[in-house]
Amino acid sequence: MSNPPDPELLSLNTATVREKWNLRQMIGGCARHRIRGISPWRDKLAEVGVKEAAKAIRDNGLVVTGLCRGGMFPGVDRRARQAAIDDNLRAIDDAATLEAKCLVLVVGGLPLGSKDLPGAREMVRDGIGDVLDHARSAGVRLAIEPLHPMYCADRACVNTLAQALDLCDELDGSGSETLGVVVDAYHVWWDPSLKTQIERAGDKRLLAFHICDWLVPTADLLTDRGMMGDGVIDLPLIRAWMEGAGYRGFHEVEILSSRNWWQRDPDEVLATCRVRHQTAC
Amino acid sequence: MSNPPDPELLSLNTATVREKWNLRQMIGGCARHRIRGISPWRDKLAEVGVKEAAKAIRDNGLVVTGLCRGGMFPGVDRRARQAAIDDNLRAIDDAATLEAKCLVLVVGGLPLGSKDLPGAREMVRDGIGDVLDHARSAGVRLAIEPLHPMYCADRACVNTLAQALDLCDELDGSGSETLGVVVDAYHVWWDPSLKTQIERAGDKRLLAFHICDWLVPTADLLTDRGMMGDGVIDLPLIRAWMEGAGYRGFHEVEILSSRNWWQRDPDEVLATCRVRHQTAC
Repeated sequence: MSNPPDPELLSLNTATVREKWNLRQMIGGCARHRIRGISPWRDKLAEVGVKEAAKAIRDNGLVVTGLCRGGMFPGVDRRARQAAIDDNLRAIDDAATLEAKCLVLVVGGLPLGSKDLPGAREMVRDGIGDVLDHARSAGVRLAIEPLHPMYCADRACVNTLAQALDLCDELDGSGSETLGVVVDAYHVWWDPSLKTQIERAGDKRLLAFHICDWLVPTADLLTDRGMMGDGVIDLPLIRAWMEGAGYRGFHEVEILSSRNWWQRDPDEVLATCRVRHQTAC
Repeated sequence: MSNPPDPELLSLNTATVREKWNLRQMIGGCARHRIRGISPWRDKLAEVGVKEAAKAIRDNGLVVTGLCRGGMFPGVDRRARQAAIDDNLRAIDDAATLEAKCLVLVVGGLPLGSKDLPGAREMVRDGIGDVLDHARSAGVRLAIEPLHPMYCADRACVNTLAQALDLCDELDGSGSETLGVVVDAYHVWWDPSLKTQIERAGDKRLLAFHICDWLVPTADLLTDRGMMGDGVIDLPLIRAWMEGAGYRGFHEVEILSSRNWWQRDPDEVLATCRVRHQTAC
């Protein structure tokens, strides 16, 4: 067993407690549980207002480890795709206001009624390309999150770290470091080339590290993710690979769990995250 | 739209009608619906006896496009792993008796309680290596089936075609053609390197082609697969890639569907398979 991680590196992706808390409660909860990082979702952010939220986060001494989320580039027609671009530009501005470490891109799946996966992947490439300059000038790093292949149709058609890094090379090969990736253990733990691709990414492109666990059995494709230690992912191994590649950033807990953790008192959830971060990551 | 496939190439994986029919009914059903190929599962086979089943299949003029299944190599200890080897040796003998085009290998996931994915993958490699000679001398081809990454923990830790072909290269690189792969559209449709890897496999290693469809949404990880045409997989495109690589074999329908097709009259299911094979594949 490797050494436990620095507890200062724990971050809360607010989806983990989204059913019972609003953003102000989440911020207070992080401060109370000495969780130093927070990654808000835009729906919760909108309830408070971005500037107000940024102030509350700063006042509590928290770091915004990511803003969730931009992306969703494929669309049924030009108009839908332009609406996605516009929304991403606003998300970049919000990420700048929050001084977020990155804007997470969940790139989107197939347009409704389409079976054209190569086409959807082109729309993703073009969409990221369309917002990259704005991100660069706003000083916001964009983090492509490869999602588990079971989300290919409806959430993200970028499904491996290799594929995400190919996009980085193609769109941001000059080394501006605007474009990078999220490594979410839940999405990539199965990948036989994970270690190689983490090494390939290196420090400059490893913008975020998300953690939770894969439960056996998994009852629901979206909302049956496990607390670290309750599943089969070798999180210390993946963390070692991340650190070996130079990653020194936060470990962001993101657990979508309708049957378990979303039902519990969020203070219990956060306390458990702190413990499991030390014992299972 | 490409030309419809040769209707003579349709095969029934008997899992598609496993809830309502025994093997004799399945054989009769195929003959009645002029489905030329059949791929039985071993549990149904055991009810009849392999020799009896082989005779009934031959008498009805059917081709056994695959035997489902061998594999499941990882085990908690040496004894469990040896039991798996022994079972695979018996499966190879059964495949020989049936004159099956291949024995499908669903390789197995993590041993109970283990998080050692690289270790499980080594057990798979070693297990296949241990049965390869017997398969070679029995004249039975072994077809590694990469399963969708959502089955990595509990069913198969070989999850991409590239990974399966790496195993073929490592274990059967001399070109004995004993080892190859199954391309099941449901498991691999999302893979950005699918076309490349099908080309890499080539005719000699493409031992079977399984078809069904990915439903949106998917309600269950295992048993919510769709009839061809009801989901988002571009089956004609994948078939074109298979044919481009030289594959001339059967198109085997395998649909695990507890909420829909398993509930229906199997004659209706087979009739639908025949139609959809022509309209959606």
